Amino acid sequence: MTLVKKETVAQSVAEMLLHVRAIKLSPDHPFKWSSGWNSPIYCDNRIALSFPEVRSAIKAALVEMIRQEFGEVDAVVGVATAGIPQGALVADALGVPFAYVRPEPKKHGMTNQIEGHLEAGQRVVVLEDLVSTGGSSLKAVEVLRASGVTVVGMAAIFTYGLDKAAENFQNSGVTLAVLSNYDEMIRKALEKNYITSDQVAALASWRMSPDTWGK
Amino acid sequence: MTLVKKETVAQSVAEMLLHVRAIKLSPDHPFKWSSGWNSPIYCDNRIALSFPEVRSAIKAALVEMIRQEFGEVDAVVGVATAGIPQGALVADALGVPFAYVRPEPKKHGMTNQIEGHLEAGQRVVVLEDLVSTGGSSLKAVEVLRASGVTVVGMAAIFTYGLDKAAENFQNSGVTLAVLSNYDEMIRKALEKNYITSDQVAALASWRMSPDTWGK
Repeated sequence: MTLVKKETVAQSVAEMLLHVRAIKLSPDHPFKWSSGWNSPIYCDNRIALSFPEVRSAIKAALVEMIRQEFGEVDAVVGVATAGIPQGALVADALGVPFAYVRPEPKKHGMTNQIEGHLEAGQRVVVLEDLVSTGGSSLKAVEVLRASGVTVVGMAAIFTYGLDKAAENFQNSGVTLAVLSNYDEMIRKALEKNYITSDQVAALASWRMSPDTWGK
Repeated sequence: MTLVKKETVAQSVAEMLLHVRAIKLSPDHPFKWSSGWNSPIYCDNRIALSFPEVRSAIKAALVEMIRQEFGEVDAVVGVATAGIPQGALVADALGVPFAYVRPEPKKHGMTNQIEGHLEAGQRVVVLEDLVSTGGSSLKAVEVLRASGVTVVGMAAIFTYGLDKAAENFQNSGVTLAVLSNYDEMIRKALEKNYITSDQVAALASWRMSPDTWGK
């Protein structure tokens, strides 16, 4: 078994996401997030699904991370919608059941909030695309816990590394494992000339106060 | 290359879906669909995602069907949400890009209706879970065509085989390839004693007039 250093994975995943423009940086012309925040970064990992080599590399890295951090799991559960595709791929690679959690119960039919078939007592890992404050991801964990399964932790592709997220995960008692993060991504973006050294300060300041930045 | 007869695939997929209770039959106590229809059948193929052997068999059958019916494709596009997991697995097996189409454009962020990265002129196959009248599936096709890609056809796991669906697909000029269908499923359900021969007539009559059945 090859143990790859976390920093190496974080740097290589950041490089891939920047390369396929799943992560876009624009410190001088900020993005407006749906939350109302202004931000120098926009992250859409779904773009990576359209690049087979990147998609496969991320799948392999998620599988390796889940094995290292959580050991054997009985099922993989994706957070709808963005966590579903990589969640299904990871479940396939691990040879375990897959299910997914909707943000709200389905309005019609069987009014399911968990889609698929899970059994009480199963040890499941939750698969998330992207963690900002962790609010929606942790809501999925609550739904799963209420159903009787044991959530051993959450695996995500990228995190902004916000203090609020750390606090929310701690309060929920959920271990979060991520492939890459904001700080490693900024380092790689600077190295590969996606940004200039002048822009690093603006990117760093956003992470400190994302709710008031640029206002 | 092994050419498996369509009827054999249709029967074996129906058997698997019945076995894991992804397809439930209840002619004596009908289900109420969200459309308001009463129906003797409820189909939730997402259940099959939680059974690795069934999930893999369906993936392999979809890949084989796509190769036979549509040849080489440049990308697989899932119809959200149910078409996403098997869509991602099929794209992975074919080694081609994956994207998915939402029922409506996203309300915030980049307001995407197509998630992922497609390029004009690409030959794409649309991956759908289940076809009833085909309305939502064909809306996804329209969105894709408007984006400039060529939709070579749609691959689905199961169809109820309704006349309305045949009419809708014909009007849209979309070729639909399915792994299994209502008639083959009824045959298999009878053979495996999920239903009695007395119940076959009720199931057959639903397919003839699904909008008025049981009212």
